[in-house]
Amino acid sequence: MTQTRTATTFAPPVMEARRWLEGVSFPPDRPLINVSQAAPVEPPPQALRQAMADFALTEDSAHLYGPVLGNPDLRAELARQISDHYGGPVTAAQVAITSGCNQAFSAAIAAITGEGDEVILPTPWYFNHKMWLDMAGVRAVPLPTGSDLLPDVQAARELLTPRTRAIALVTPNNPGGVEYPADLVGAFFDLAVEHGLRLLVDETYRDFDSRSGAPHDLFTRPDWDKTLVHLYSFSKAYRLTGHRVGALAADPALLAEIEKFLDTVAICPGQIGQHAALWGMRNLGQWVAGERDEILDRRAAILDGMPALEAQGWKLLGLGAYFAYVEHPFDIPSDELAKRLVREAGVLLLPGTMFMPEGDTAGTRQLRIAFANLDRAGIGQLFDRLSTIRI
Amino acid sequence: MTQTRTATTFAPPVMEARRWLEGVSFPPDRPLINVSQAAPVEPPPQALRQAMADFALTEDSAHLYGPVLGNPDLRAELARQISDHYGGPVTAAQVAITSGCNQAFSAAIAAITGEGDEVILPTPWYFNHKMWLDMAGVRAVPLPTGSDLLPDVQAARELLTPRTRAIALVTPNNPGGVEYPADLVGAFFDLAVEHGLRLLVDETYRDFDSRSGAPHDLFTRPDWDKTLVHLYSFSKAYRLTGHRVGALAADPALLAEIEKFLDTVAICPGQIGQHAALWGMRNLGQWVAGERDEILDRRAAILDGMPALEAQGWKLLGLGAYFAYVEHPFDIPSDELAKRLVREAGVLLLPGTMFMPEGDTAGTRQLRIAFANLDRAGIGQLFDRLSTIRI
Repeated sequence: MTQTRTATTFAPPVMEARRWLEGVSFPPDRPLINVSQAAPVEPPPQALRQAMADFALTEDSAHLYGPVLGNPDLRAELARQISDHYGGPVTAAQVAITSGCNQAFSAAIAAITGEGDEVILPTPWYFNHKMWLDMAGVRAVPLPTGSDLLPDVQAARELLTPRTRAIALVTPNNPGGVEYPADLVGAFFDLAVEHGLRLLVDETYRDFDSRSGAPHDLFTRPDWDKTLVHLYSFSKAYRLTGHRVGALAADPALLAEIEKFLDTVAICPGQIGQHAALWGMRNLGQWVAGERDEILDRRAAILDGMPALEAQGWKLLGLGAYFAYVEHPFDIPSDELAKRLVREAGVLLLPGTMFMPEGDTAGTRQLRIAFANLDRAGIGQLFDRLSTIRI
Repeated sequence: MTQTRTATTFAPPVMEARRWLEGVSFPPDRPLINVSQAAPVEPPPQALRQAMADFALTEDSAHLYGPVLGNPDLRAELARQISDHYGGPVTAAQVAITSGCNQAFSAAIAAITGEGDEVILPTPWYFNHKMWLDMAGVRAVPLPTGSDLLPDVQAARELLTPRTRAIALVTPNNPGGVEYPADLVGAFFDLAVEHGLRLLVDETYRDFDSRSGAPHDLFTRPDWDKTLVHLYSFSKAYRLTGHRVGALAADPALLAEIEKFLDTVAICPGQIGQHAALWGMRNLGQWVAGERDEILDRRAAILDGMPALEAQGWKLLGLGAYFAYVEHPFDIPSDELAKRLVREAGVLLLPGTMFMPEGDTAGTRQLRIAFANLDRAGIGQLFDRLSTIRI
């Protein structure tokens, strides 16, 4: 018997981590601190909720199928905003809307690769990328990063084979938090052009980049769309995780291929999510800027708290987007430590092993802290608990 | 170079048909009659729209991620209603919610098959099933049906090979309209059990079945979930196409595999769609019964109108759900005829060739009429136009 597609990969890590909570009780004076999932836990602003409600009540199209690649008005608005932000020309025909950014990645891979092909992923990697590549019959080729969590172009070049079809970067990075320098992203683009590969750049967290202005210049390159596949999510900026709305920017010919995949796994993105994304882009620019300031302040709070942890032997490896990626000082592997932290510290976070290829021991010393839902006080409590834990 | 996954299949037929409209104008006294897509064009009832609006405004969870396999309350309610309708035991753990029924099919196939496996599909088939099997690297093995559009169990048995993993039925059928007799569905179940296969039964149109009561007894069979994968859609009954909410009922162990696929292509179904489906199931039973009466009346109108078409050499091959599947009398292939009908009759419908394997000539004489959006008067006009066309 052949192995089924799903048998080639592992169970969703976020769901597995949630199961560690079963049977554990948390006293009222020390509630669970959940820094496991990279998702807003607050609802969107009231005006956006009202816009969604009005849309459901008054627009018949809110309830009907739309085009497979998304609504024209949303595609046009996103194209315009990408053009503005990155300073390069992007048209509506180069943009498609998907039911979330994971779906954008899956669809792009289906249009770029076939059975037995290879895609290079820096490690630690985003586990859903690895899972999809497994299920697509594509080998995820790990590109280990150094202590700065940045991938090296020369090291990537050495991994290329005749089966390599793409390199997939995530910046700001999940799980590492690091913001890839523009020059580094540009060098990967050059490598991709040189070898006729696609460069996927997942920028789910771009609205929380600490740098102002364009984080890279790829959209200004001639024929950018022959190489770049830009992935984006509306979920974080506008707090729309429950509505599943993401996007990609790419060559229209590639989007015509992607349309086949999306037609069979989604038919079209949900209408209310698309409307909310459009309304948000048109009305919430100022609000998102405030959200970014808040996330950047929480990021600063992590830096403020690190000395107490460093005194216990911890190290900060990467910090940005929603994430602090840290090295722990204990002589047990991070997956075991993570389970003990639930019971002994009331903290749920994900171990580095979940972001690493099987057998790669680097992850056993690493932990991802998705800090975005904690305010300064919460981050202080988190650090108190971590710095006093005894293993 | 290997072929990419999407290159193995064809462009979405519904989008292709939509392009036939480009550059064609329809006079006000003879507007386009669009019987191409099997989807409600009216919005859901006002009370359901209000429930969705209230949910967006007042429930924070409306905007947050939910469980990959769907919300527990919706899973439980659907399990209860399947149990009631089919007279067999179904638990919430045997039910999962997906972002539409196409996604339910894709996910099930990913959990059942691997590269090079085979799935048997009666022809004419539902093209999205064929497209997904292509992209999954699975051979869709056509099982030609006879003039009654019903598949034959013995013929299916002769198509089995060591690579066969499943048989996928659609009842009431798309595109054929036929309602598979309970005995026939039962015989396919027996065949699947005998050979250790899964039997997928896509019942997207079950709410419009002309038969009262359970359309088959599979849920009453011992260990039904070791063989049956039941697929369902909330889109038709509650007019929720724009919200992408479908479901499947299967073995919990298979659902754990399916969870991997859904996590990477969807993360979770949209929350507003899930709430709408739950609210609909709890409050709109009577309303759906009225909708069914209306569809059955339109179906009767097709039968009333057929003699005029039959006088011109047309034949009715199948009728039910949203579909009349007909044979045309002209000496040109149906795909060419369909394009001419747009310009010469102001009618958009899909040719049988879209539902057939390449090279199978049966489809060249066949057309699918998705009549559900036409009232009696509209069906009368459609038949007037078709019976007076001269090719």
